[in-house]
Amino acid sequence: MFLQIEKFLTESEVRSIGDMSSRVKFIDGRRSNPHNTRKTNLIADPADSVGQQISQIALNALQRSDEARDFVFPKRVAIPTLSRYEVGMTYGAHIDSAFLPVGPQPLRSDVSCTIFIANADDYEGGELIVHLGSQLVRLKGAAGSAVFYASTAIHQVLPVTSGVRLVVITFIESQIPDPMERDMLYALGEVRALEAAKMDWRNRTQLDYVIENLRRMWSR
Amino acid sequence: MFLQIEKFLTESEVRSIGDMSSRVKFIDGRRSNPHNTRKTNLIADPADSVGQQISQIALNALQRSDEARDFVFPKRVAIPTLSRYEVGMTYGAHIDSAFLPVGPQPLRSDVSCTIFIANADDYEGGELIVHLGSQLVRLKGAAGSAVFYASTAIHQVLPVTSGVRLVVITFIESQIPDPMERDMLYALGEVRALEAAKMDWRNRTQLDYVIENLRRMWSR
Amino acid sequence: MFLQIEKFLTESEVRSIGDMSSRVKFIDGRRSNPHNTRKTNLIADPADSVGQQISQIALNALQRSDEARDFVFPKRVAIPTLSRYEVGMTYGAHIDSAFLPVGPQPLRSDVSCTIFIANADDYEGGELIVHLGSQLVRLKGAAGSAVFYASTAIHQVLPVTSGVRLVVITFIESQIPDPMERDMLYALGEVRALEAAKMDWRNRTQLDYVIENLRRMWSR
Amino acid sequence: MFLQIEKFLTESEVRSIGDMSSRVKFIDGRRSNPHNTRKTNLIADPADSVGQQISQIALNALQRSDEARDFVFPKRVAIPTLSRYEVGMTYGAHIDSAFLPVGPQPLRSDVSCTIFIANADDYEGGELIVHLGSQLVRLKGAAGSAVFYASTAIHQVLPVTSGVRLVVITFIESQIPDPMERDMLYALGEVRALEAAKMDWRNRTQLDYVIENLRRMWSR
Amino acid sequence: MFLQIEKFLTESEVRSIGDMSSRVKFIDGRRSNPHNTRKTNLIADPADSVGQQISQIALNALQRSDEARDFVFPKRVAIPTLSRYEVGMTYGAHIDSAFLPVGPQPLRSDVSCTIFIANADDYEGGELIVHLGSQLVRLKGAAGSAVFYASTAIHQVLPVTSGVRLVVITFIESQIPDPMERDMLYALGEVRALEAAKMDWRNRTQLDYVIENLRRMWSR
Amino acid sequence: MFLQIEKFLTESEVRSIGDMSSRVKFIDGRRSNPHNTRKTNLIADPADSVGQQISQIALNALQRSDEARDFVFPKRVAIPTLSRYEVGMTYGAHIDSAFLPVGPQPLRSDVSCTIFIANADDYEGGELIVHLGSQLVRLKGAAGSAVFYASTAIHQVLPVTSGVRLVVITFIESQIPDPMERDMLYALGEVRALEAAKMDWRNRTQLDYVIENLRRMWSR
Repeated sequence: MFLQIEKFLTESEVRSIGDMSSRVKFIDGRRSNPHNTRKTNLIADPADSVGQQISQIALNALQRSDEARDFVFPKRVAIPTLSRYEVGMTYGAHIDSAFLPVGPQPLRSDVSCTIFIANADDYEGGELIVHLGSQLVRLKGAAGSAVFYASTAIHQVLPVTSGVRLVVITFIESQIPDPMERDMLYALGEVRALEAAKMDWRNRTQLDYVIENLRRMWSR
Repeated sequence: MFLQIEKFLTESEVRSIGDMSSRVKFIDGRRSNPHNTRKTNLIADPADSVGQQISQIALNALQRSDEARDFVFPKRVAIPTLSRYEVGMTYGAHIDSAFLPVGPQPLRSDVSCTIFIANADDYEGGELIVHLGSQLVRLKGAAGSAVFYASTAIHQVLPVTSGVRLVVITFIESQIPDPMERDMLYALGEVRALEAAKMDWRNRTQLDYVIENLRRMWSR
Repeated sequence: MFLQIEKFLTESEVRSIGDMSSRVKFIDGRRSNPHNTRKTNLIADPADSVGQQISQIALNALQRSDEARDFVFPKRVAIPTLSRYEVGMTYGAHIDSAFLPVGPQPLRSDVSCTIFIANADDYEGGELIVHLGSQLVRLKGAAGSAVFYASTAIHQVLPVTSGVRLVVITFIESQIPDPMERDMLYALGEVRALEAAKMDWRNRTQLDYVIENLRRMWSR
Repeated sequence: MFLQIEKFLTESEVRSIGDMSSRVKFIDGRRSNPHNTRKTNLIADPADSVGQQISQIALNALQRSDEARDFVFPKRVAIPTLSRYEVGMTYGAHIDSAFLPVGPQPLRSDVSCTIFIANADDYEGGELIVHLGSQLVRLKGAAGSAVFYASTAIHQVLPVTSGVRLVVITFIESQIPDPMERDMLYALGEVRALEAAKMDWRNRTQLDYVIENLRRMWSR
Repeated sequence: MFLQIEKFLTESEVRSIGDMSSRVKFIDGRRSNPHNTRKTNLIADPADSVGQQISQIALNALQRSDEARDFVFPKRVAIPTLSRYEVGMTYGAHIDSAFLPVGPQPLRSDVSCTIFIANADDYEGGELIVHLGSQLVRLKGAAGSAVFYASTAIHQVLPVTSGVRLVVITFIESQIPDPMERDMLYALGEVRALEAAKMDWRNRTQLDYVIENLRRMWSR
Repeated sequence: MFLQIEKFLTESEVRSIGDMSSRVKFIDGRRSNPHNTRKTNLIADPADSVGQQISQIALNALQRSDEARDFVFPKRVAIPTLSRYEVGMTYGAHIDSAFLPVGPQPLRSDVSCTIFIANADDYEGGELIVHLGSQLVRLKGAAGSAVFYASTAIHQVLPVTSGVRLVVITFIESQIPDPMERDMLYALGEVRALEAAKMDWRNRTQLDYVIENLRRMWSR
């Protein structure tokens, strides 16, 4: 399942990250996936303090977004990384590693997040493609928008053919790791948020009963 | 979870079974559980045609009851049996067998059903006791009422101290064998039945989405 | 996951169904989902012998297709139905029922299949839309092609704005009901089919070991 | 399942808590569940040092009770809270939240515990009612007794009609979150504790084999 | 897990099968697994009436053996096949197919069974080897003995270097498909069979409670 | 499943441990399992600094071994313990406890590891026997070799009849606690390690897709 959030970052946050991106030190993106010979992009050096400021802006946005929280059920978030694709750069079809070596305990990547910094018409190519068997979902958002999707899908970034693709990406460990279960809880949560006030007390309690017990059953 | 349904049988059905119970041939109830040395009751002989008519009345009631169907998610029903406890008769604490040798494929007993034929004040003692650890649930219904409960619980029938306890019992294999999962689907089904008409189309579809997919996941 | 198969029906089969579709008796499509007030289409009368011939052609195609079998792991198939959408007809967003009342035992609908009879440029509108949260997958295939997708997704058919949309649809109960598990077994099966001949004997046996045991674990 | 433990607190502990309860600062109980408009009770201010002493007495009792440990399989315990219901106060039917915001990582509430401080005949009304579908379990214990039950059940506290209801409540995250699985392990543990000494060595080892492996399988 | 049963067939049954084996028509064993290029053995023609008599003897033995039933929890049994390995014949390391095309519905092979007809010292080589990672279990039984083991393991038959290896093999679909779960139920069943008579009534009921509910949970 | 690794310790590490073993303080092995009346062995005192050096050597070997890591998917490792069996000492058939009280959070013992320090011909008896129902696996390795096996199996150490058995043992909590699931992931990992370089890019990505998603599903 996908959740696209427009204006996930404010315009001023997008501008700040855009400005900082010209000062940050970039390194070879293969550092995070050395075995993928089809990956050629640049990522902000995690040791660079400008890059760290960018990460912090993205983390703040993740923390304040109710929509993201209701969809993702976040448990832990990896440090967001600014990523830059110049003309010809690409990231071949791949699956994100189940566990990322983050801190003392590896982080299970359940949900992937791409925040678009460059605007969709600032560059050609560079679409994020999610493979669903023979169908492909193509994602290219407005600056400041974010898209969340299950890390369980094969995906790729098409080669950039003009301009520069600038995105911030991160990975989230969810309290509800199974994508289908997580989506059902999101759906019930929406029903509760939008309909509970109109419901008979007893039915509302029954809905709570199911939601809370599914969270108990499915959390991991 | 328990479901007690008043007037599960009509008054005339209760009267018919009462009348027939004086003509039916009874045999030793231990036939269905020979290892339980604490069982002393009588059951209608399955080969007796009067007993078969009684079974059919109970089956008809099960088939026409929407409440029972929504709570039980029935897949197969064992042939209901008239059971008679005279003074001093009892059935010690026990758990129903997981599988009953019914027809070519054994029937998994997921839900137990007791239909009360004698009225609660026609006999003393004879309560159906369901053990929930240190708490006991005591069940003794009006003639024609039925109670459904998970076959997973230890239960017993207390000794009858006066009068005659007459009940029809049966076992049902459910599409949703896990008691907790079955109860959550029942709760969501009630919410849908009672609230969907008031809901926004999109939320109603989300609720359908969850219910149908939980049924897919949990059926066995 | 989606599987689109081009030329699932031969050209002559498509022509036959097209011809027969002008002679078959159509009835109101709401018959199969009376609660959906947003459904207005026509389906071939299941009692009509012409419609039955159409169903048989579709069943034959399903049985001979190795691609479909490897993707679906079919256990039971519902009788395929010719469906007709004239201008203005539509099927609002909905989820397919978990169980269809087919024969003595209900059929769990795990995989949905649409076979396109009218060509994509014979009608406007009428796209099959599969909802994946905020992203939509739009499906409109060439005559004779088929698309298979998990019945667990909310989907709809957009209103036809010109021409006639003619499709055959069916539902399949899979040996592997969970969509993710089914897709993983499909992926491993492809790896085996395409790579096993090149593999060292021991590794090939290890791959068999995993595939056969996942099928044991995940079948239901 | 329920476990009622008499004399869970010593008489002197009950007296101490009773004495301290007259000095502790109480605040509106809705603080812990602001959405429940049917909740009107008082809880000891978590910042009050007298309340903290009360919590510590309850924690000590939980730690020393073998019965509680064998039934609950505790992993983490929320800080117990003294709760006071005066005449007219009540807590409507509700389900406990799956996760409580306790410390850096939320605590999953698997088992709920009520320790009775006021004696059952010190107040009228105020029963703790656990809903099991159409059957209700009514709980009102002697001072110093405790009752443990699965947090998965809908429950309520009836309005107090005279006197004051004084209880300490807490929530426990269990190593075995599923209530049915937890109860089966409790049952096997009792069989081992009471019968293993009489068993043949081989059978005893077989019983250990099952218990230890179920704990591996079911812990989360 | 393994179960070796001595004298699974009577001496006269072994003799009968031995006699019939000289009259039965053998065909190439690859018929049941054409892809395994390392299989060279002979199997009795399923269409041959002598072979059918042999199968019937094996089926009878399976049905009368309480030990086999308690270990296997049989649901369906494939028709047993007499298999013959002459000098040089072998069956390379492989895993049994998850599903066998037996009758209208495929049979899931959960438990494999080999009944030894030739005596262990009638031939050299021909050991049944079950692979457990780096350890191998070697099985070569006395005439009339049978060995049952989970079909989930990779196994092979070593080349016969002298004499003739004669065995009857079959595959069983179990009510409890998971090998570990099946073994735990077998262990608890043994404890009940051997210890229940000595147990306190309450503990015995608790043990029944666990066994019957695990069977409900784990059957498939 | 078993994994035996030859030369898990270097010759010099074996010699060091052998030397230190003559200086270390031994205590009664029952300390770690006081209920097992059939355990008579000696273990190095955890408080002894020489014993701690031995533990560190074993931990280093575990950390550097790719083979062990690929087979075990380690999450936490208990401190390895030197264990000494003199003539007549033994450890009766038992199952390792599911949880060991190690540090603030108990460690789930999923994989057991024995590192042989004394050479197989330095002592008679003392075999490690793993029970697989009616078959036994006998393990007695060369000095410096290690064997890993699922902690879910009943096992024992036969009485030593001459010489001294010296081993280091430890317990590992695995990211993949289920033995069968862990073994399937190990098998797929081997296929990837040995065959991926030869595979078509698409098939390799499909294999990655399955491996990473099974790790997500099965980790706990």
